[in-house]
Amino acid sequence: MRQAIDLAIENVRSGGGGPFGALVVKEGVVIATGVNTVVRANDPTAHAEISAIRAACRSLGSFQLIGCEIYTSCEPCPMCLGAIYWARVASFYFSSTRSDAAGAGFDDSLIYEQLQFAPEYRSIPGLRLLPKDGLAAFQEWQQAPQRQAY
Amino acid sequence: MRQAIDLAIENVRSGGGGPFGALVVKEGVVIATGVNTVVRANDPTAHAEISAIRAACRSLGSFQLIGCEIYTSCEPCPMCLGAIYWARVASFYFSSTRSDAAGAGFDDSLIYEQLQFAPEYRSIPGLRLLPKDGLAAFQEWQQAPQRQAY
Repeated sequence: MRQAIDLAIENVRSGGGGPFGALVVKEGVVIATGVNTVVRANDPTAHAEISAIRAACRSLGSFQLIGCEIYTSCEPCPMCLGAIYWARVASFYFSSTRSDAAGAGFDDSLIYEQLQFAPEYRSIPGLRLLPKDGLAAFQEWQQAPQRQAY
Repeated sequence: MRQAIDLAIENVRSGGGGPFGALVVKEGVVIATGVNTVVRANDPTAHAEISAIRAACRSLGSFQLIGCEIYTSCEPCPMCLGAIYWARVASFYFSSTRSDAAGAGFDDSLIYEQLQFAPEYRSIPGLRLLPKDGLAAFQEWQQAPQRQAY
């Protein structure tokens, strides 16, 4: 955890981006690190955890991180928590919380709150169109002989 | 929306990946598209919406998509919804729902449920370590003269 926090601090000092750092650990060994590069990379998804997960997957040649743990300087936002679920890591560890992040001007807490509302009632509303038509994609998937679940 | 669904179907037929497609639209013009490439790219974050958002940001040279809309074949999972918030799009549109996705074997609904629990009670538990130490990163950020909020 100390290492994740140091990455976060160093990322601010070096002008790399926001105050966030993360590590992916497998069997006690750090296999990837990540820092926030949203502004520098023009990529709103370039959070520390997402970057560390992508780097770890590249390193292992796998789309899952089974048996791995993530150490992150701050509680993951919903985007990064979703990525943690999709990567199927075993567990994660954090130091600061979503409230600490809110205190520093970041939207993590707001997004957690918004997720609890139905899509149409959120501050960024999500509306349903052609509600029957999308099922055709899932039917195609169920019938695809070569499909690989993830 | 028809175009997003077609992308999803074509992605399965071509063996590209999961049955999901998305578009980013600005002022009525499609500026980027994305499909699910999780397995092919060994990247658990390569969902259609994430890929479309990253491509749109590259295209605009910006880390935000203010004034843009997203059309996606299926309701965004929490990871993609988080990305939608960070990208600050105006609104989004979807056809299938998280329940439809669950019916086809995808974890979207499960992740929405898990997000409501405190980190330590989730199926992928998140535990807090060195709770005071992470604040140093936010203090560094608050004092950084060159910091750019996002």
